[in-house]
Amino acid sequence: MLVVMKPHASEAEIEAVAEKIRSLGLTPHPIPGAQRVAIGITGNKGGLDPGLFETLPGVAEAIRVSQPFKLVSREVKEEDTVLDVGGVPLGGKAIAVMAGPCSVESQEQILETAHAVKAAGARFLRGGAFKPRTSPYEFQGLAEEGLQLLALAREQTGLKIVTEVMDVETLPLVADYADVLQLGARNMQNFSLLKQLGSIRKPVLLKRGPSATIKEWLMAAEYILSRGNYQVALCERGIRTFETMTRNTLDLNAVPVLKALTHLPVIVDPSHGIGLRAHVAAMARAGIAAGADGIIVEVHPRPDKALSDGHQSLTPREFDDLVKQVRVIAGAIGREV
Amino acid sequence: MLVVMKPHASEAEIEAVAEKIRSLGLTPHPIPGAQRVAIGITGNKGGLDPGLFETLPGVAEAIRVSQPFKLVSREVKEEDTVLDVGGVPLGGKAIAVMAGPCSVESQEQILETAHAVKAAGARFLRGGAFKPRTSPYEFQGLAEEGLQLLALAREQTGLKIVTEVMDVETLPLVADYADVLQLGARNMQNFSLLKQLGSIRKPVLLKRGPSATIKEWLMAAEYILSRGNYQVALCERGIRTFETMTRNTLDLNAVPVLKALTHLPVIVDPSHGIGLRAHVAAMARAGIAAGADGIIVEVHPRPDKALSDGHQSLTPREFDDLVKQVRVIAGAIGREV
Amino acid sequence: MLVVMKPHASEAEIEAVAEKIRSLGLTPHPIPGAQRVAIGITGNKGGLDPGLFETLPGVAEAIRVSQPFKLVSREVKEEDTVLDVGGVPLGGKAIAVMAGPCSVESQEQILETAHAVKAAGARFLRGGAFKPRTSPYEFQGLAEEGLQLLALAREQTGLKIVTEVMDVETLPLVADYADVLQLGARNMQNFSLLKQLGSIRKPVLLKRGPSATIKEWLMAAEYILSRGNYQVALCERGIRTFETMTRNTLDLNAVPVLKALTHLPVIVDPSHGIGLRAHVAAMARAGIAAGADGIIVEVHPRPDKALSDGHQSLTPREFDDLVKQVRVIAGAIGREV
Amino acid sequence: MLVVMKPHASEAEIEAVAEKIRSLGLTPHPIPGAQRVAIGITGNKGGLDPGLFETLPGVAEAIRVSQPFKLVSREVKEEDTVLDVGGVPLGGKAIAVMAGPCSVESQEQILETAHAVKAAGARFLRGGAFKPRTSPYEFQGLAEEGLQLLALAREQTGLKIVTEVMDVETLPLVADYADVLQLGARNMQNFSLLKQLGSIRKPVLLKRGPSATIKEWLMAAEYILSRGNYQVALCERGIRTFETMTRNTLDLNAVPVLKALTHLPVIVDPSHGIGLRAHVAAMARAGIAAGADGIIVEVHPRPDKALSDGHQSLTPREFDDLVKQVRVIAGAIGREV
Repeated sequence: MLVVMKPHASEAEIEAVAEKIRSLGLTPHPIPGAQRVAIGITGNKGGLDPGLFETLPGVAEAIRVSQPFKLVSREVKEEDTVLDVGGVPLGGKAIAVMAGPCSVESQEQILETAHAVKAAGARFLRGGAFKPRTSPYEFQGLAEEGLQLLALAREQTGLKIVTEVMDVETLPLVADYADVLQLGARNMQNFSLLKQLGSIRKPVLLKRGPSATIKEWLMAAEYILSRGNYQVALCERGIRTFETMTRNTLDLNAVPVLKALTHLPVIVDPSHGIGLRAHVAAMARAGIAAGADGIIVEVHPRPDKALSDGHQSLTPREFDDLVKQVRVIAGAIGREV
Repeated sequence: MLVVMKPHASEAEIEAVAEKIRSLGLTPHPIPGAQRVAIGITGNKGGLDPGLFETLPGVAEAIRVSQPFKLVSREVKEEDTVLDVGGVPLGGKAIAVMAGPCSVESQEQILETAHAVKAAGARFLRGGAFKPRTSPYEFQGLAEEGLQLLALAREQTGLKIVTEVMDVETLPLVADYADVLQLGARNMQNFSLLKQLGSIRKPVLLKRGPSATIKEWLMAAEYILSRGNYQVALCERGIRTFETMTRNTLDLNAVPVLKALTHLPVIVDPSHGIGLRAHVAAMARAGIAAGADGIIVEVHPRPDKALSDGHQSLTPREFDDLVKQVRVIAGAIGREV
Repeated sequence: MLVVMKPHASEAEIEAVAEKIRSLGLTPHPIPGAQRVAIGITGNKGGLDPGLFETLPGVAEAIRVSQPFKLVSREVKEEDTVLDVGGVPLGGKAIAVMAGPCSVESQEQILETAHAVKAAGARFLRGGAFKPRTSPYEFQGLAEEGLQLLALAREQTGLKIVTEVMDVETLPLVADYADVLQLGARNMQNFSLLKQLGSIRKPVLLKRGPSATIKEWLMAAEYILSRGNYQVALCERGIRTFETMTRNTLDLNAVPVLKALTHLPVIVDPSHGIGLRAHVAAMARAGIAAGADGIIVEVHPRPDKALSDGHQSLTPREFDDLVKQVRVIAGAIGREV
Repeated sequence: MLVVMKPHASEAEIEAVAEKIRSLGLTPHPIPGAQRVAIGITGNKGGLDPGLFETLPGVAEAIRVSQPFKLVSREVKEEDTVLDVGGVPLGGKAIAVMAGPCSVESQEQILETAHAVKAAGARFLRGGAFKPRTSPYEFQGLAEEGLQLLALAREQTGLKIVTEVMDVETLPLVADYADVLQLGARNMQNFSLLKQLGSIRKPVLLKRGPSATIKEWLMAAEYILSRGNYQVALCERGIRTFETMTRNTLDLNAVPVLKALTHLPVIVDPSHGIGLRAHVAAMARAGIAAGADGIIVEVHPRPDKALSDGHQSLTPREFDDLVKQVRVIAGAIGREV
């Protein structure tokens, strides 16, 4: 259920509606819009009677939300959500460019990469300190040391830090350093972690699980919003199909579908999506042309020596060229990098 | 094996190499390039000795082809192939725009559509006269009457006709009317039909099977080229995945992968690929941004009354808008519509 | 629409209903059952009025068929269909055992295999004379010579011949030799060939396409039945998934689903399904335990020298062991080999 | 690397090898077998020199493990692992039968189910107290109250408890009550939780992720074993494919493939696998025929009123019939229920 307030409803009227919702044992989610405030309701089993709310002062109407996902839905909030990452927008007209190595490996590596991607136009630095790896015998990341190196890179460049959180135990630690918390594809339905991410006040980049449907993905985001954290962006990073020439199948169909269903920003990850260095730029261009709000790209100063994902990482020079191409596409459709 | 001739090798030298190949019980495939002629060899089991050819006059070198697909490979022909469809190029710098209804339904419908898509910028008219349908009880197309209506539309507009051929029996009939013979996704590995298409001299648009790997798709094209028909374009139209919000999953990853592996033109079909009218334009833009050489789009004057595929067909007005968007993207990457 | 006749309806009453159906421009399909005759109706667009038939003499009731597939549905025919392959049943209590090489390669090979699989308990000999191959450069089968060798093997052993037909052109030739016409997975939606198979009077073994849904598969069978050939068996042979350790993913879930939806016999092909010699027997056992009506297994006297599919072919000795295992499972669930 | 000891190697000799391994900064994993002890080594980057160990007293040979998974591999341990669940075997000749509701809902429900499934032949009671749900608004389980009810059911019936653990925080609590800790499909690559499960000494039932390859699944088990917990069973519960008639596609191909690759027991979950009550028994039979070591089946006294998974839950009576069928199949292949 969504209670839409009149354009000039007062604070008191809004609070009265929220109080009414709470009195029913349910949770109100006030959602400010350009024209009016709407209040999403969660916690009900089955439908609610619109009449409960439509007679309250300041209420324009109370409408049923037809989708199983509520707070992430465009039905509940028409305007695009723009995350505020310490002053840098994520979403909106400007294409968000995120870049950096798969894993933080050393001070030299992360600083060299950070300066290079900033020069090319990135405003976010990605890099993993805690790494989910298929094998227990592979490099698992530098842990807190990696986070400290990311903080140092931020200090030197002003880039915002995007880094993965793998579990509830390390969440406070990671949240201390990160500007955006990345939830990895394999954890997309780690519901305990999703709930915890809903309780903090940091932007979250929620990657799509390799076999998650669009609906399941939106429901995972709903977990976060339903706990009160409305700062979520979605990241398409490739789904698992039968094709073996590419690492995954970057599903760009999800981009326009999501933009129609949800107000949350949508980012594409061409590096994991196609998994082949030579073709990352083509998929980044295509992602922006499809309507994505940003890209996240793996860049490493010496891909052949990377401890992980070297085969899909770009050199700084290749990344610089990619940003130029993306800028052209963005300009062609009325956006900017 | 590929025999590369010297830049100024004479006709007689080329023919002598071809004759040598034939004398070994194998088939020569002369492939003219901008700088020099190369001669592909097919029919051998196991490797050939390069020494058999490298001593012949005019031969620069004889090289092994590492891929299982030979004649379609960039190893054999570096330059992009540009099909000549009665004077209209398919491939090369210009983006090929193909549009029209799923099925030819009536004279009024096809003429109205043809004039509209021409006005919007299309140079090819698509439309099915023989329709493969999942159910035996669904509309199966107007057959020859449909072909006649397509010919009439060509007469009035000058558009080139792209239409599907479903079997060997109707191939001569369809080839009489068509400018480009479309081989449908479900027939991608109909080897009898592929062989027959290799024996005629008409351009073929080979759609990817819904679960065909890129390699299998190239092998299907190889069937056609190995019989002597080098006029083949590939059409990505969506693969089958677990996602149910979209009809198929348009696999744009295939575009840059193919452009690297083969010299054949690559077309994308956003209509079947995503299967949702509202999102066809986004996927067409993305396809061009990914490097495709053209698009094929379903357009119907009254989609809600279409006998097939109405939910994914654009109105002429929507198509006109789509072409404008594609033109902008094409311009941004140095191509043109 | 299905018109169910009363138990003792006369021939004349049945014919009168059929005539009524024809007079409406539709096609009647009389389906004899143990208790009563039912008459399926195809050709109508939209629903028919039951009242058109319920007042005719001998009619018990006229009921709507809720599935998009009609004649293959259990709604239309409750009893299991048992194909009569020249006196050998396919379907029913006895498990049909089909075995033989992927391709017929030589007289020695096919005769040796035929005698061996017969001794082990097979009643059908499989073997391809026309082979669909991914590459145009691979062995394509012995064509008519292969068919003659199959006929010779039948003469010597009494086994019924199951062999693939690839196109309409060679259908009369293949039908001359075959007892059961196999339609291969890649041709499952070759509608022209399906229609032609509907017009002859030979049993058809319809393999599931590698990415065909169960519904699409039943619709393909419906193509054959709707033209008047009711002798169809379905063959599950593995679907295409992301798993790469097995050649395909034999989908045994399809077996009980099909047995509930259709009256047609269901065969499983563990050889193509899992594609690993060591595990064919396990999947054959599982298929029978799931409720399949038969198995089709690749057997070759010298798998390591086979011209195709050697890695998934059993030796005659392994096949003999497999039949023993299948017999035990069959016995445990009240069936027999 | 695997160091195989001679049949009568002494404790001291074994310990000397382990000490040698530790002295290299690596981890020894002694694996007792019927004939001899083997010692797996993990922690090395790149290959080790066999000569380091082959000269030590009591060592028969040191061999490289060719698979990326080590401790779970049959190369490292030939004999089937049989878990000891408080005296009840999981693995080995006896088929493990696990049954119970999706979620624990009430004392009456769980006790009624426990008594019924015990009477039918189950020795393990399944039931979720912490439920991973796609939507934040769905029933999330009774939490500790659910665990207490499971303990009560154990007290009354002697059944061993199998219940899901969702995160590291609740692991100590769940481990206090559970006899077997189930790791759910969506958490298969929750590496933080896998590591933690490696540090406790409780049997783990590791469900396959819906799009996990067999190799990834074995690597997930390797995470647990590499930390010292060797009590792991694998549970196939269906993979995600394009088919929509079934909830998932139970991949029985995985059963023989796993039994060849690993010594760990393999359980199948036909309830989630096919997701249709009418067909659970057929898939259970097929799973056992394929070689599985057990089944886990959803049973609810009143499926139509279940708070979750009612459409795939059996009634106690249906379950009783299923066990009878499974018993027959088991007997046919030399096993027992």
